[in-house]
Formats: sequence, C-alpha cells, structure tokens
Amino acid sequence: MDKFFDFLNTRRSIRKFKQGKISKDTINKILETGMEAPSAINEQPWHFVVIDKQELIDKILRFHPHASMAAKATIAILVCGDLKLEKAKGFWVQDCSAATQNILLAVHALGLGAVWTGVYPRQKRIDGFRKLLNLPENIIPFSFIPIGYPAEKSFKAERFKKERIHYNKW
Amino acid sequence: MDKFFDFLNTRRSIRKFKQGKISKDTINKILETGMEAPSAINEQPWHFVVIDKQELIDKILRFHPHASMAAKATIAILVCGDLKLEKAKGFWVQDCSAATQNILLAVHALGLGAVWTGVYPRQKRIDGFRKLLNLPENIIPFSFIPIGYPAEKSFKAERFKKERIHYNKW
Repeated sequence: MDKFFDFLNTRRSIRKFKQGKISKDTINKILETGMEAPSAINEQPWHFVVIDKQELIDKILRFHPHASMAAKATIAILVCGDLKLEKAKGFWVQDCSAATQNILLAVHALGLGAVWTGVYPRQKRIDGFRKLLNLPENIIPFSFIPIGYPAEKSFKAERFKKERIHYNKW
Repeated sequence: MDKFFDFLNTRRSIRKFKQGKISKDTINKILETGMEAPSAINEQPWHFVVIDKQELIDKILRFHPHASMAAKATIAILVCGDLKLEKAKGFWVQDCSAATQNILLAVHALGLGAVWTGVYPRQKRIDGFRKLLNLPENIIPFSFIPIGYPAEKSFKAERFKKERIHYNKW
C-alpha cells in the first residue's frame, strides 16, 4: 500500500528532458491508462494526438506560450475532447482532466517525465491547434503534455494543508 | 513498473459498500494525495469537506440525483474550488478534477472504494451544497465522492480504443 502512495505522491511536473526513444508500445501503455480514467456516464469523450515531429512542435511553440519544454521532449500528447461523444453535457472537461492526470501517472510509472500544459479554455491555443492539425469542429484541444526522459528529479512536495479540510460544515 | 499499471488500471467506480470505519489518519492520507495533484501555476485552488453525518447525507440525496450510493458509504468528500485562490483564470475545474482523480486512486491504494459524482456545473446540486454547508460565494462545490469498504470488485475494464489515437495529424 505504501508503495502506491510513494508512487502517487512523487509525481512531479518534469520540464527538463534528455534524449531517448519511446516506443509505440510504451505510448499505447500510457494512452491505455488515460482511457481507463473515469468519465461521466462512462462517456469517454476523448481523443489523443501523439506528436513526435519537430516541425510541428516548432509551430506549436509559436501559439502556446507555456510549452517551451516541448522542444526537448521525445513526444507530446494532445488530449482532445469530442463534443459529439459527450452525453452528460458540461462534463467533458472533467473527463479529459481525469484522463490527463492518468497519463501523467502512467508516465511516472515508467520512469519518464511529463508536464500538463493548459490549452482549453485559452482561445489562441485552441485556434492554433485546430488550424495546425485540421481538427473538426466537435474536437476541442484540451491539454498538451510533453513527455520524455527526465533530466530533473521527481520528489514528494509538501502540499498538505490542514486548513483546507473541513468536517461536516464550512 | 507493472504493479503500478495494474494498480492504476484496476481502479473502478465502486457504488456498493459494506460497513467499516475509516480513521482520521486515513482520511488525511487520502486528502494529502488529493493535494499532491498538479494545478495551473501550482495554485492549488481546492478545499475538502468531509461528511460523515448521516443526517447530512440524507439531505444531500434530496438535491443530488446520482448520489444514492452515499447512503451506505462510510464517509463522503466534497471537493470544492476556491475562486479566490485561482490565479490562472478558467483552470480551477481542471485542478479540482486532478485532485478528485488522485483521491479516487488513493482510495483504491487503500483497498477502499469510491465513486466520483458530478456536482459542478449542475446548478441545483451547487445550490443544494451551498445552502446545506453555508459555503461562501467564492467556494464552488465541485465533486462529491462517497467512500467506503467495497462490496463489489475492482477490475481492469477494456477501454482501450485504438481509433482514438492519432499521429501528428487528425
């Protein structure tokens, strides 16, 4: 049990990467865990675009102001919401967030590193990905996750805040 | 490594519970993992209301149509977003989703069970929690998570969908 808590609580955002390949099998393993995330009425309203072409990354950095670490990552995953697959209206953001968190944890389980950079609801970033990848109207680019071999360490941060816990009342 | 994937991919929504106590230390352990979630600019815009009074649960079931399993749970956690703590406008929902997913995984690590029931953006549920718990205006009830000893099994679901994966283009 403690090994699972050590695992969960030492996931950190990794923004420094060193070179190394990631196989398609490994990418599928990461994405499988993303797809195991819970979703409203089990709607699973997600798609994943794996990006490993440097020319695409270069273009992404022109419209995404907080993704410069992607330049040295091995791959990046763009998690997208599909409004046509959404059954519980208004919940696709939460579903895609759970999938994104699962992807970060799968990456951590592999000894790789990743960072969640926000796309939705920033219009410039949404438009940038939409144009670059020719996304259909019902597909909303949601989060952009550079992934690679970590050149910085994971560790347990001290984020526990007792004052954020309430019992039976505010 | 495989043990972590087995762990991550066998988390399921648990809606049937049997009796059993959950200590305050255990609750803190669960919430600590919630607080280790990533958030935009590390803003950590969350609060957690632990509910273990049956009279409160009874009242919640009157305004939350999908939380009947809470009646037999040992506790429930209401994750709330705090708009005053949000620095990256528009990202508190994603932050609270990541915290919720971490809570579900912490529960699973303990051999307990839980289910994520949606509150935000359903206005009736938001108003219900706001009134019941006397929440300040800046606090938005976000997700309601009944937790207890599982009376049904966790398992790996088959959710992998190859057709949801794209490479470098749509």
